[in-house]
Amino acid sequence: MEKSRLDKQIEFSTEIDKEKEIFRQTYLADGSRKENDAEHAWHAAIMTYLLAEYANEKIDVAKTMMMLLIHDIVEVDAGDTYAYDEVGKQTQREREQKAADRLYRLLPQDQGKALRALWDEFEEGVSAEAKFARVMDNLQPMMLNVASDGKAWVEHEVAVSKILKRNKCTPLGSEILWNYAKEKWIKPNIEAGKIIDDEGMLGK
Amino acid sequence: MEKSRLDKQIEFSTEIDKEKEIFRQTYLADGSRKENDAEHAWHAAIMTYLLAEYANEKIDVAKTMMMLLIHDIVEVDAGDTYAYDEVGKQTQREREQKAADRLYRLLPQDQGKALRALWDEFEEGVSAEAKFARVMDNLQPMMLNVASDGKAWVEHEVAVSKILKRNKCTPLGSEILWNYAKEKWIKPNIEAGKIIDDEGMLGK
Repeated sequence: MEKSRLDKQIEFSTEIDKEKEIFRQTYLADGSRKENDAEHAWHAAIMTYLLAEYANEKIDVAKTMMMLLIHDIVEVDAGDTYAYDEVGKQTQREREQKAADRLYRLLPQDQGKALRALWDEFEEGVSAEAKFARVMDNLQPMMLNVASDGKAWVEHEVAVSKILKRNKCTPLGSEILWNYAKEKWIKPNIEAGKIIDDEGMLGK
Repeated sequence: MEKSRLDKQIEFSTEIDKEKEIFRQTYLADGSRKENDAEHAWHAAIMTYLLAEYANEKIDVAKTMMMLLIHDIVEVDAGDTYAYDEVGKQTQREREQKAADRLYRLLPQDQGKALRALWDEFEEGVSAEAKFARVMDNLQPMMLNVASDGKAWVEHEVAVSKILKRNKCTPLGSEILWNYAKEKWIKPNIEAGKIIDDEGMLGK
């Protein structure tokens, strides 16, 4: 029997449940355990609603929220690649493209195409919405690292040069939020010995 | 030192991280563990985007998604009340109102008021958006119960009369989705012995 439009939508909805089992390197605010992709997406979407006023360019808030809600769905197949895992990152793009091909084809064609286009836009990072979504994607875990007393930074002996490299596009999405993160989160955590200061950032 | 607007927004964003530790009675699709409020909200918001076309009345999709993303935030203080816990439900409203008072006051006033109003609207269940949000709030866990082979239904020895009572407003938000749930989810799970048929629903 051919699947109805609604059957396909439910099949996709059930399939993405697996995102709740893709765990990231970031700890919850209380440090009790690592968070998963679904939790991260939920958190980043709400933060978008609250912090959109600081975007450099005016953004479509609802579109940016949806972009964040789905941005890690490919990890259902491709797994999470830690931001500072240089080996994993070499194959990341190919793994994720293959995952997007499979997953978005579960949906009715119109919706599959729309979500795939939204994810591609996020990956390209060019539109105002994609630039701000990437700010949220980077600052939500940074906020949790701060709240959990730098637990993930200490565990991975993270140097500030890596954080700066990962965040090189953050000021393109929001200068205000990037300055806040530098002054209120990064510098105090260098001082506290949670982040290694291989750039001499404190002197700057 | 007085908190800046951005400090308040970050404080609220950090506080709601606790929603990831409020566990529900629903199991993940693979039955491996129960899901938490943040995961449930993420899932219901995406399903809103996909299934909005089945709403009885035209809805503002973005507004409904945001409503779902925040609808359980009060449980950070008030805890989760299981849908079929009749004792807990007697004090639920008071506990949740108190929680909303505290939590939304962490935000700058304009945003606190806006989110509180959105949550009140959800609770009232009158607007087209609230009616559809409640459909998602009920059908997302039902979908997972189906996927996990009725695990939560069996564990709580759930009778169909309780499911019908809980879902008495579901057809007001979407007749199409309610009929789908009845035919594809509830009836087959009565047949399979996962739901107790105290209403003789199969004969109807």
